[in-house]
Amino acid sequence: MEDAEWECTVEAPVNIALVKYWGKRDSELILPYNDSVSLTLDEEKLGTRTTVRYSASYEEDSLVLNGKPTVISSRLSNVIEEIRRAFRKQAVRIKMNAQDLMSMSRYRFRIETNNKMPTAAGLASSASGMACITFALCTALGITESVDMSELARLGSGSACRSIHGGLVQWEAGKEEDGSDSLAKQIYPASTWPELKFIVLVVDGEKKKVGSTEGMQRSMATSEYMLLRPKQCKDRIQEVCWAFQAKLFPALAEVIIKDSNTLHAICRDSYPPVNYLTRTSEALIDFVHRLNEALGDVCVAYTFDAGPNCFVIFEEKHESLLMWLLLHTFIENDVIDPTIHRQPKWDDDELAKYTAIIDEFSNYRNSVKSYYETTVGSGPKVVNAPRLI
Amino acid sequence: MEDAEWECTVEAPVNIALVKYWGKRDSELILPYNDSVSLTLDEEKLGTRTTVRYSASYEEDSLVLNGKPTVISSRLSNVIEEIRRAFRKQAVRIKMNAQDLMSMSRYRFRIETNNKMPTAAGLASSASGMACITFALCTALGITESVDMSELARLGSGSACRSIHGGLVQWEAGKEEDGSDSLAKQIYPASTWPELKFIVLVVDGEKKKVGSTEGMQRSMATSEYMLLRPKQCKDRIQEVCWAFQAKLFPALAEVIIKDSNTLHAICRDSYPPVNYLTRTSEALIDFVHRLNEALGDVCVAYTFDAGPNCFVIFEEKHESLLMWLLLHTFIENDVIDPTIHRQPKWDDDELAKYTAIIDEFSNYRNSVKSYYETTVGSGPKVVNAPRLI
Repeated sequence: MEDAEWECTVEAPVNIALVKYWGKRDSELILPYNDSVSLTLDEEKLGTRTTVRYSASYEEDSLVLNGKPTVISSRLSNVIEEIRRAFRKQAVRIKMNAQDLMSMSRYRFRIETNNKMPTAAGLASSASGMACITFALCTALGITESVDMSELARLGSGSACRSIHGGLVQWEAGKEEDGSDSLAKQIYPASTWPELKFIVLVVDGEKKKVGSTEGMQRSMATSEYMLLRPKQCKDRIQEVCWAFQAKLFPALAEVIIKDSNTLHAICRDSYPPVNYLTRTSEALIDFVHRLNEALGDVCVAYTFDAGPNCFVIFEEKHESLLMWLLLHTFIENDVIDPTIHRQPKWDDDELAKYTAIIDEFSNYRNSVKSYYETTVGSGPKVVNAPRLI
Repeated sequence: MEDAEWECTVEAPVNIALVKYWGKRDSELILPYNDSVSLTLDEEKLGTRTTVRYSASYEEDSLVLNGKPTVISSRLSNVIEEIRRAFRKQAVRIKMNAQDLMSMSRYRFRIETNNKMPTAAGLASSASGMACITFALCTALGITESVDMSELARLGSGSACRSIHGGLVQWEAGKEEDGSDSLAKQIYPASTWPELKFIVLVVDGEKKKVGSTEGMQRSMATSEYMLLRPKQCKDRIQEVCWAFQAKLFPALAEVIIKDSNTLHAICRDSYPPVNYLTRTSEALIDFVHRLNEALGDVCVAYTFDAGPNCFVIFEEKHESLLMWLLLHTFIENDVIDPTIHRQPKWDDDELAKYTAIIDEFSNYRNSVKSYYETTVGSGPKVVNAPRLI
């Protein structure tokens, strides 16, 4: 058994925060300053696939990220060590036989991980990436059920903990110094609201001048708004959960929009100020408010993480209208598949109303370079269970 | 005396808030939600000149604004009525003879008022305008000493009350329902810090979509950050006063920058969000931080009201450097007088440092359409005392 090599493959999704995580109460353990809540996306389009080979005969852990051998960061190294420790505890608890325990304790991992979307483009690839590696290693060691993987993934990248579950997920800040109560939990499964849809609009920005870790530090140190944040987040999360359960989109949308704006308000209020939005991002904000005005209700929501890309959220029934409008305002011609998005049926009044919106945003034609359409997803999955190779 | 016509001419300056007024606790009386503090600018460049003709034989009040006959707004009409009332009270108090009182009570005013800078371009022309009309009418009626003109000007346009005094001016929110304690007072005269300089950079924006009155209402109704604002303003005003008295520019600059950013953070946090800054405004923010970084201290401050124009504040010793940099980065070539701003003397290292900044902002060449250089001013002044015409 000593020389046996094993392999497994898993996938984990991106999650998108509706009430945002911003600021750490402990930067070593990545313990957040406030609770947050997110929707897990379908991992088919926005997610990460990780294959781990592992053997007691390998000399060290290694990582290949998107085809490129990459040094294991100290954060990832923390995650791997914590997973090994969790495995040993579990092995002792279940009285694993000594030889297996010895052998498996010596496993080293060759991690090969690939993001399905551009890495570090503000599409939360670090969240799905860390969640995916955590899930892959726990799968390899057979401890997915006996540990809280959200606690382990969190050590790699805070918001990764929310990608461990599908549907609507809450990450509690917790109070313990060791972070043992800072865990992500599913509130409602993806099946609760299958009509929810997302369009992710990729907006070209200049290279991010201020990373999110530094941005958070600045906000914690300098923005007084942070004083209100823990309570504000708790209140907003309650609203999100209520609206989600009742499937009341306008109520959900209003909280989502407000919390995104609050995050970027706090960034602007930090010293020196931080700005993650471009002119196109701001035009997309105006566009959504303008469209909601035309529709007479908050039928479309936007949210922005610490980057210029726009996550648009809506119900299926508004998909054809929204897509048709986006294609005629923001999205670059080259990336449009002309066969899929036909103009919905409108009478003349409606057509005039929407044509007016298109005209208002004519300065932004082709400013969105690519887009992804997706839905709520049900969380990480095993693609290939552990097997000898 | 019945048919006698009189005339006087006065000037009043623009003031620029260092800790901003945002939100009303009473919209009828224009009572602010928080204290604010401002610097009054020299009225020579940014101010208003008003000439009033008045006579008991005129049939009604009238207004000519920038050469154009203009309807007297209900707010201005309030101001005029309050000034007449204040005059009558004062006339009774000093036991004015009955005939003079009768005659002067029947005065009607032909107000001719001209702004020295573009009206409604975000250069606080409403503040200097209302202060100027108030000062002109009180001068006409001889009550400049016996009434609080800041209370009267406030009824026309909130921040106008601060233009009644020179130097550093504080406007207290007050607590009384009738607004009697919501007055502006001079904290330090202009002579305290004559080395303070301003450059006002006029940035072309689209027409303001959301006026400041509506913006304030939205913030009051929807931004939780407003909960912290009264206390935050009190603290910041203390810092401003301390830094001003001690003439510690970096301390002053940091508060100025922070409070400007807070105002615009609150706007972004409002629902729907409001944005008064353009891409050029944001580049000017980055430019100032970048320059301060190069200088190793906070030698330059910026502040933005509810508009895209940038008010840059600094000490005289940095004027040639700053002006030279602005001329090579943002200011449109056509408006530059080539004789006045020569390159300061630098060694090669310094030159390289500043050239690097110019390069970084090369995308923004000619984005500032005009500029004004000015200083702290000492408040409204009488140009021509009342005389018979």
